[in-house]
Amino acid sequence: MRTHTKKLKDWVQDAAREQIRRKARRQEKAGFFEREGGIGWRRKLWESYDAGQAWIVVTLVGSAIGLNAAFLNIVTEWLSDIKLGHCTTAFYLNESFCCWGAENGCPEWKRWSSFWFLNYIFYIIFAAIFAITAGVLVKAFAPYAAGSGISEIKCIIAGFVMKGFLGAWTLLIKSIALPLAIASGLSVGKEGPSVHYAVCTGNVISRFFNKYRRNAAKTREILSASAAAGVAVAFGSPIGGVLFSLEEMSNYFPLKTMWRSYFCALVATAVLAAMNPFRTGQLVMFQVKYDRDWHFFEILFYLIIGVFGGLYGAFVIKWNLRAQAFRKKYLTKYPILEATVLAVVTAIICYPNMFLRIDMTESMEILFLECEGGHDYDELCDRKNRWRMIFSLAIATIVRTLLVIISYGCKVPAGIFVPSMAIGASFGRMVGIFVQYLHESFPTSAFFAGCQPDVPCITPGTYAFLGAAAALSGIMHITVSVVVIMFELTGALTYILPTMIVVGVTKAVGERFGKGGIADRAIWFNGFPFLDNKEEHTFGVPVSQVMTSNVVALPAAGLEIRAIERIMAENKFQGYPVVDDVTSKILIGYVGRTELRYAIDRAKREQMAPGHAKCYFTSTSASTTTPSSSMPSVTFDTMAATSAQLNVDMSRFMDPTPLSVHPRLPLETVMELFKKMGPRVILIEYRGRLTGLVTVKDCLKYQFKVEAQENPRDDRTLNEGQERVWSVMHQVAVWFDVRLNELRRRLGIGSGPGIQLHSPISQTSSMDRGQHSAEDERPSIELEDRPRGRRGPDHVEVR
Amino acid sequence: MRTHTKKLKDWVQDAAREQIRRKARRQEKAGFFEREGGIGWRRKLWESYDAGQAWIVVTLVGSAIGLNAAFLNIVTEWLSDIKLGHCTTAFYLNESFCCWGAENGCPEWKRWSSFWFLNYIFYIIFAAIFAITAGVLVKAFAPYAAGSGISEIKCIIAGFVMKGFLGAWTLLIKSIALPLAIASGLSVGKEGPSVHYAVCTGNVISRFFNKYRRNAAKTREILSASAAAGVAVAFGSPIGGVLFSLEEMSNYFPLKTMWRSYFCALVATAVLAAMNPFRTGQLVMFQVKYDRDWHFFEILFYLIIGVFGGLYGAFVIKWNLRAQAFRKKYLTKYPILEATVLAVVTAIICYPNMFLRIDMTESMEILFLECEGGHDYDELCDRKNRWRMIFSLAIATIVRTLLVIISYGCKVPAGIFVPSMAIGASFGRMVGIFVQYLHESFPTSAFFAGCQPDVPCITPGTYAFLGAAAALSGIMHITVSVVVIMFELTGALTYILPTMIVVGVTKAVGERFGKGGIADRAIWFNGFPFLDNKEEHTFGVPVSQVMTSNVVALPAAGLEIRAIERIMAENKFQGYPVVDDVTSKILIGYVGRTELRYAIDRAKREQMAPGHAKCYFTSTSASTTTPSSSMPSVTFDTMAATSAQLNVDMSRFMDPTPLSVHPRLPLETVMELFKKMGPRVILIEYRGRLTGLVTVKDCLKYQFKVEAQENPRDDRTLNEGQERVWSVMHQVAVWFDVRLNELRRRLGIGSGPGIQLHSPISQTSSMDRGQHSAEDERPSIELEDRPRGRRGPDHVEVR
Repeated sequence: MRTHTKKLKDWVQDAAREQIRRKARRQEKAGFFEREGGIGWRRKLWESYDAGQAWIVVTLVGSAIGLNAAFLNIVTEWLSDIKLGHCTTAFYLNESFCCWGAENGCPEWKRWSSFWFLNYIFYIIFAAIFAITAGVLVKAFAPYAAGSGISEIKCIIAGFVMKGFLGAWTLLIKSIALPLAIASGLSVGKEGPSVHYAVCTGNVISRFFNKYRRNAAKTREILSASAAAGVAVAFGSPIGGVLFSLEEMSNYFPLKTMWRSYFCALVATAVLAAMNPFRTGQLVMFQVKYDRDWHFFEILFYLIIGVFGGLYGAFVIKWNLRAQAFRKKYLTKYPILEATVLAVVTAIICYPNMFLRIDMTESMEILFLECEGGHDYDELCDRKNRWRMIFSLAIATIVRTLLVIISYGCKVPAGIFVPSMAIGASFGRMVGIFVQYLHESFPTSAFFAGCQPDVPCITPGTYAFLGAAAALSGIMHITVSVVVIMFELTGALTYILPTMIVVGVTKAVGERFGKGGIADRAIWFNGFPFLDNKEEHTFGVPVSQVMTSNVVALPAAGLEIRAIERIMAENKFQGYPVVDDVTSKILIGYVGRTELRYAIDRAKREQMAPGHAKCYFTSTSASTTTPSSSMPSVTFDTMAATSAQLNVDMSRFMDPTPLSVHPRLPLETVMELFKKMGPRVILIEYRGRLTGLVTVKDCLKYQFKVEAQENPRDDRTLNEGQERVWSVMHQVAVWFDVRLNELRRRLGIGSGPGIQLHSPISQTSSMDRGQHSAEDERPSIELEDRPRGRRGPDHVEVR
Repeated sequence: MRTHTKKLKDWVQDAAREQIRRKARRQEKAGFFEREGGIGWRRKLWESYDAGQAWIVVTLVGSAIGLNAAFLNIVTEWLSDIKLGHCTTAFYLNESFCCWGAENGCPEWKRWSSFWFLNYIFYIIFAAIFAITAGVLVKAFAPYAAGSGISEIKCIIAGFVMKGFLGAWTLLIKSIALPLAIASGLSVGKEGPSVHYAVCTGNVISRFFNKYRRNAAKTREILSASAAAGVAVAFGSPIGGVLFSLEEMSNYFPLKTMWRSYFCALVATAVLAAMNPFRTGQLVMFQVKYDRDWHFFEILFYLIIGVFGGLYGAFVIKWNLRAQAFRKKYLTKYPILEATVLAVVTAIICYPNMFLRIDMTESMEILFLECEGGHDYDELCDRKNRWRMIFSLAIATIVRTLLVIISYGCKVPAGIFVPSMAIGASFGRMVGIFVQYLHESFPTSAFFAGCQPDVPCITPGTYAFLGAAAALSGIMHITVSVVVIMFELTGALTYILPTMIVVGVTKAVGERFGKGGIADRAIWFNGFPFLDNKEEHTFGVPVSQVMTSNVVALPAAGLEIRAIERIMAENKFQGYPVVDDVTSKILIGYVGRTELRYAIDRAKREQMAPGHAKCYFTSTSASTTTPSSSMPSVTFDTMAATSAQLNVDMSRFMDPTPLSVHPRLPLETVMELFKKMGPRVILIEYRGRLTGLVTVKDCLKYQFKVEAQENPRDDRTLNEGQERVWSVMHQVAVWFDVRLNELRRRLGIGSGPGIQLHSPISQTSSMDRGQHSAEDERPSIELEDRPRGRRGPDHVEVR
């Protein structure tokens, strides 16, 4: 397993290995054929199994994701409804199943109480319980299940290793905690986490197949495909999922992966459709039909919505990153309390507003609808309520935005897609109602000449639709997938041009405020080692400025085993270049740390090689085969028999053809090589001599340095602000603690099993102690702890 | 210009050059700022112009494409209608404009005659006239305007050069000849040619901008974006266009290109929508709405349709390539006659069949429709006509397939998208009617349990829709873009899962019969130098087996100018490695042929360097800048002044850091490098010494050789078949010639100006003589003439 994770990065070697495997299989096949003659039906069966393995895996993964999604949908609906009331006939039914066939509720579905205020309290209590449960589950069993996971998966698909991030535990906990987190009413969505559990599913299932256990390049394909399926089931948008995986998740997306993603998303969606969790026969969350076409003059308002999307994205990204920094600095010890407080605050604030109280998906559905045809929610379409509605929608937009900023990133499964869309929808509907008002006030104005008389001209629902698209595009900085997702979600195809215009404007505005969506910025913020495909670097320096010059290289012949072991103990390099001799430094090859370790262990075990045995990386019989990790034990046996002087042939473990470049090659080209070819390391060779070595880490270090020089910033005010916020929070916590203790004392309860709203410091720090090991895992995946922006890239570290 | 075209291939150098340009601009900017102080508004203006140039170009290109598409649509409609009749009020109006507002025709629109047979004759005559005109235009002005152009554009975007293929003449002629070709009734579509004229537009417009004239990498971006816009306007499907460009056109598609494509497609579609050529307010050709949802049991029939799509694709690709081979061997001299005969034959055959007579787009629209709601064309929905309809549709499917096979590739603008879709639609409708019959015969069967009673259950129109998707996917081997195009075309979003299933099955079946759609296979057939991204090669050999070993290298110091000129005259290599000296072969760098030519000419002109002047590629003052083609004339001046011994410093023209690899690197990795990094040449270096050189050509040569060995085939029967077909055709031609001459003699006409249906041999060969030079251009772009498949890759040649 360790071998695998270590090697995940080297695509070049992976590909070479796969080719050797295939060739070997072909030869074996030929031999087999000769031996067995015409009877080889078993061979044929085996062959087709081997060839079809990829499809079997993708089908299994897709089905599993579809089933999981159906389960999640059902559980989420039930949990969301239980906050408001319960079904008297069967407690496990949600409102729509309880009242199947009836319109607008039924007597079987009872609210918890008939008092408005008690319902409010119940609502808050349930929210708190759900949040606590989700938080505890995440903290206790799978810390990686927190958050959205998209940033991390991007890095993993790009080839970096985070052990356990895609494990079975994460999958399980994410699947259980996600409905809880959503039902708790937090301003979080299920799309990001859906991608995460989908990719976990892909990883877990593919581990059962030989082909994938061995080959990381193949696994990447499955992971990309799973990501596509994750979005597909979350939105009911299979093509949108494929495009999302292409546009956002993968930095290298060959057509074959697209085809696999297509298939995986198809299977997952088909399974979900067959399960039919909503019993509506609808794949999508809501379907909208707009009868009217749009008018050219409306483009002006579309532009406004587009600009809003861009600004919204920039604002939320900026402040959410600050919130994350604050969280990292002060709140890491109180993840459960944080989630609970957030859930309670959200419940308290949101209940009074008609658009915030209901589920975000539901609110979007209401906002998207046309007013004609009897769709009316709480007099949204009523002309006399217009200004009240505009006010209410404005409040909803602002409050939800603030909640998203503080909620996204808290330690429960939490996505940002649906909250953003809900915000966009409320803003858009607001604009739409305003435009409708304008039109009705000045129906004869030249500006509205495009409108036909006597027919409603403006459809506020379409503005909500466009607003949702704009906000989603603004936060993620994706374009094509947003457009496709919006269509698959609603089917409003007449609005393809407006949607494209809005998303285009959003993208253009968003780019003004910095490259990359929230996922990319989170990667940068967390310091993950990820070469961004979107950014274009112009350093204008040769690679020699960036490379490590004093490379620890192994001489090709005569080094003793114990010397190698000493070298390996002295440092933690992933591998060592092999040179002719240490002074001439003529480059011979490159040997990975894992292979070296394996070779030494094997030599010791099978050859009884003592410490002073000499290692040779150049075999006299120059074989033309490419490097392979499957080593024929023949070598060792013959060696042991013939070599009395105890030489160990290690040439089989060395890659004789590592990628090497000229020291004066521009750094940009080297980074392109890393991005497109995916090697673990690139050696710098000048006229045959090894002069240096460069890794992705070195490139990123340099990039950070340049960025820091270009944008020097003063963190002092920010730090002071954080301090102030923290002290306020602390005071509030102490005040609550005192009050609660008082209350407890008065009621005579020692340490009651009630809602655990103790002082943050005393309570959670004591809870934390037992979990330290689990919590410890997290920081180790980070390149660097950069809570307040670009500090310095000195201690870059990749596991 | 020549410099440009020659360099198109080297992405690595292009990128480096662009970076230097930017850096220089930044420095210049800084200097400017210091000099001008705060007044630099002109600078700011200039800067934003420079930064926005890309957007200006894309906007212009998009608008031009949109305008052109609107023009094409209008002309095509008019030409198609004029075959059937004319408008008595204004001859320039087509039927729908002539009868604006009226249903089912009007008295102003008159058929040419009231006799059925005379109309038939008129129809044939118009078809012939249109075909002749299109053929003559293409032959006389722009031979490159023939065919679809998708294969060639794929190669061009991948970096190869076909001079004039994207020129203004091609653009003009393609735009004029395309409506003629479609109106002639040939079984050709407008989508492929749309891509071609769109890319021409992109190329022509971007030439006016400095940034693009200089940088081929940037131009590629514009070309990809134009291709997207081309599909977008052809189908009215902007997102489909972007995805098509991504899936089919570009072998390297960074996100920035996607964003440009998005924008370009958006502008083009918006302009087209604003022009509103059909006056329907509809962007798409036809919009379909299906009221009913699909049932799970229907998946069985969807599978049949999917399989049909795959088989259709495989069949048409195979036989169309054979037809192409035949065309290449026997018909190259008679392009106009061929097109005319095809048009006449098509007209004669198609007129009697109700589905073949009308325009393909129109027939698709009819076939897609639901039967309910008053849509009925010629009793298609009538229950009693069922078997007649099935028969008629079967005939239409078969005849159209045969016509597509012989028509696609004839020397007029011709696409294969719409014909394929029309074939698929007729097959699908046939299946749909049959399933409907089954359901109505056995309404109570368990199989149809999913149907609701008393409501129509099967919608044959949806089968037609799915059939069209299947056939399109089968012929092009694209998946995601087909699904998106179908939705944007029709808006039938409820059918996303069925469409995905059908397309998935088609793709899987198609892959059985060979990799790649018709465009890829045409590339292979024509021997264009294109490394396919879709194919995976497993050769299992090191690059040393493929490389050229006896490389002509230049010594770094002391070679005389006349010696270099002699070397350059002796061979036509694109460039020369530079080595320390010829015996040691220590690699110093690489100099391109063009740069070398330029350097020598410049030295001669400015330095008055005689032939015995010595060239030095290693300058004593080692500069760390990367290679640049903008050469400071300072070097020459100082050189001229100081060096009495007539040394010419050429170090500036040499690339000191060419990509070089180890001889034992697997060939597959080298091909990956070519595909992903796009260098012109990769040098093979062993311990600092140059041992060889490899180009894409070398890789392709080897690939062809391996393929030929793996699939040896006997072409004799095929050749004999071709011979037989040709002799039959020849006899028919002679027979016609004799009859015509007789007729002419009887009527006393010497060489009348009528329809030129002379004997093929005498007539067209005489016409050809004057055009030889134009016609000659074509074969020169081909790697090799491989009319009957894989003959041998000996004389591979790239211009």
